[in-house]
Amino acid sequence: MPQDSAPPLPRDTAPPTAAGPAPGSAFDWLDTARSERQRAGLVRALRPRPADCPLLDLAGNDYLGLSRHPEVTHAAAEAAQLWGAGATGSRLVSGSTELHARLEAELAAFCGFEAALVLSSGYAANLAVATALTAPGTLVVSDAGNHASLIDGCRLSRARTEVAPHADPEAVRGALAGHSGRALVVTDSVFSVDGDAAPLPALAAACRAHGAALLVDDAHGLGVLGDGGRGALAAAGLAGDADVVATVTLSKSLGSQGGAVLGPARVIEHLVNTARTFIFDTGLAPAAAGGALAALRLIGREPERAARAGEVARELHHRLTEAGLTAVRPDAAVVSVRAPSPEAAVRWAADCRTAGLAVGCFRPPSVPDGISRLRLTARADLTGDQLDRAVGTIVATAPPMS
Amino acid sequence: MPQDSAPPLPRDTAPPTAAGPAPGSAFDWLDTARSERQRAGLVRALRPRPADCPLLDLAGNDYLGLSRHPEVTHAAAEAAQLWGAGATGSRLVSGSTELHARLEAELAAFCGFEAALVLSSGYAANLAVATALTAPGTLVVSDAGNHASLIDGCRLSRARTEVAPHADPEAVRGALAGHSGRALVVTDSVFSVDGDAAPLPALAAACRAHGAALLVDDAHGLGVLGDGGRGALAAAGLAGDADVVATVTLSKSLGSQGGAVLGPARVIEHLVNTARTFIFDTGLAPAAAGGALAALRLIGREPERAARAGEVARELHHRLTEAGLTAVRPDAAVVSVRAPSPEAAVRWAADCRTAGLAVGCFRPPSVPDGISRLRLTARADLTGDQLDRAVGTIVATAPPMS
Ligand SMILES: Cc1ncc(COP(=O)(O)O)c(C=O)c1O
Ligand SMILES: Cc1ncc(COP(=O)(O)O)c(C=O)c1O
Repeated sequence: MPQDSAPPLPRDTAPPTAAGPAPGSAFDWLDTARSERQRAGLVRALRPRPADCPLLDLAGNDYLGLSRHPEVTHAAAEAAQLWGAGATGSRLVSGSTELHARLEAELAAFCGFEAALVLSSGYAANLAVATALTAPGTLVVSDAGNHASLIDGCRLSRARTEVAPHADPEAVRGALAGHSGRALVVTDSVFSVDGDAAPLPALAAACRAHGAALLVDDAHGLGVLGDGGRGALAAAGLAGDADVVATVTLSKSLGSQGGAVLGPARVIEHLVNTARTFIFDTGLAPAAAGGALAALRLIGREPERAARAGEVARELHHRLTEAGLTAVRPDAAVVSVRAPSPEAAVRWAADCRTAGLAVGCFRPPSVPDGISRLRLTARADLTGDQLDRAVGTIVATAPPMS
Repeated sequence: MPQDSAPPLPRDTAPPTAAGPAPGSAFDWLDTARSERQRAGLVRALRPRPADCPLLDLAGNDYLGLSRHPEVTHAAAEAAQLWGAGATGSRLVSGSTELHARLEAELAAFCGFEAALVLSSGYAANLAVATALTAPGTLVVSDAGNHASLIDGCRLSRARTEVAPHADPEAVRGALAGHSGRALVVTDSVFSVDGDAAPLPALAAACRAHGAALLVDDAHGLGVLGDGGRGALAAAGLAGDADVVATVTLSKSLGSQGGAVLGPARVIEHLVNTARTFIFDTGLAPAAAGGALAALRLIGREPERAARAGEVARELHHRLTEAGLTAVRPDAAVVSVRAPSPEAAVRWAADCRTAGLAVGCFRPPSVPDGISRLRLTARADLTGDQLDRAVGTIVATAPPMS
């Protein structure tokens, strides 16, 4: 084929030579991608921590400090011994144990829902709901700040997705008004990047007015919001509502791993029968189910933990803004502090680390708005001394703000 | 709007009444879906098992019998105590431990790959690779019998997917020949429903001829195929190939939970930087990583387990077909036995269960070809007596074959 009549090659194409492509060249484009990342200063690398990591942790999502609570780790260990290291199969084949059933019953009761279904992660739970509760012709209205797993759920569904401006119930109303037929409104309860809360009552009212269902990802609300940590839906009086479904993760306030869907029994039954990330995935490991169940019981017994996480967050925010930093008023346990640039954010986080403090650093492409920030998580078990140290370090290492 | 000018309503629509939709009606369509399932005899329900389940298990995927091996459960328990019940965050933030790094290094070395990356499930691993190694303009050629997680990975990617007839390297060649630019060929190594093996050498040759990459999901090959259980890629001489990526699950032969990607270091680095189901997911729980690592070391020390699983499978197949049943010759540890109908398959599996034997029952919509079957898994630790009992039960309860 003469050059000038050839269709334009896509950017990622290396035209095969006469002798065919060189063996071992299928991934050469990755080198280019790496160079681009390096040039943009956006290289990520894993930094494995030791078991006795000396850093003060304001980076993880262990909001209640339960992942290392002896009751929780002991329950996880015991579950592995009693039930085995793995579930051995799909929950529909060999992978459902009475431990899973107990966790589901207690989680539903605690959060105020009729039924619950445990999956291997919060990510899988969001994919399950977004795909199984929609069909071609369904309208999904999704908040612009939603978590990647909800976004992927929308992509994986065959529904039409309309992205609504962040935390804007009027926009959601508008989108629903333009549609007749099934609709699902999808939102984080507490947004993972900035820690701000969704306007749940207004969203629920919009859904009710249009006969739409509401899906709320309460990953960052469970254990922190609501009476004793019952979550954002309980706080908004929406738990157990016939048209509301919540997803949670067992990996943050419950200190373990896994995810769950909470909702009306008919929704749970539908997921058991149709949700691909439930049906075709190995059940959650018994140790993770056991750890989460112990954490749940602990929260039930010690309801003050939830309130304490919120207090620590507000205290962090207050002291950082008093020191001249720009931070979003926290609605739960996540405190987001602005950085002037991605490079400054990375350097700031590194300086904190050198000073013994682990903080999160969010920057493009992990942030929806392109703004880089430090992401701090309040933990219910932080002492006053630790809080002093954390604030002192963050302020002392702060870059000049423009 | 007058009735006759209204656009046709989609099937799932209940037109709002003048007073607006009834509160709590957004999920009414689920009742219809349930009735349809009931009419079709396709209702699935969870059946939680006790810790001391008396059934002989030929349903789970614990091919080497390691999920309850004391070394494995002890390691899982110890990891929970030492590292905590959860990883506390994304592997890129707080969720990477030295335990994860050790598991990755030993898994890569065992299977013969340059590098490995552990994710929270095999499902997440497949989503990660299928999305991060493709772009708009990439052609994905996917075997018609592939696992749901690979199919969802293709759907979630922005690539164009061509479904190739099952186990047909010539068709794959044809699809690649019609495309210029990046391409990825995607296949299970051992197909989860029928237990037959993919023609990996021929697929690799087709990829090589066209400069395409090859992704092989070795969920059912690891621990069973290859020297000492090093997997289907090792068996085919393809492990460590520059253009080959494998995914595995830690939940079958390794008796635990989680997934991993194995491949060239530049592929792993790319996933760390770009794969959404890695970046936005909490790291695998330490107990699961610890259990899988112990299982891996055990397999390394006792290489005869892998061969034994294959022997048991072939023995099962031999005795069932001798008794007049129709079963697919097993290439690994999965033995698939035909049933005359979905109803007969369900009854057969129930009769086995009544007689003390747990077997899998696959039927629409979980099977690509609409054929219902019993799915048996050979375990390396089955005794001769147990094998006799299993075969006796399956044959005695078999429905009349048409
Ligand atoms: C809002 C939100 N939803 C879902 C998830 C995913 O949960 P998991 O880590 O259990 O997969 C996360 C974080 O991990 C999250 O922040
Ligand atoms: C072929 C295949 N790939 C992937 C998976 C998913 O692995 P996991 O259960 O670890 O998510 C499974 C089964 O669970 C499988 O059979």
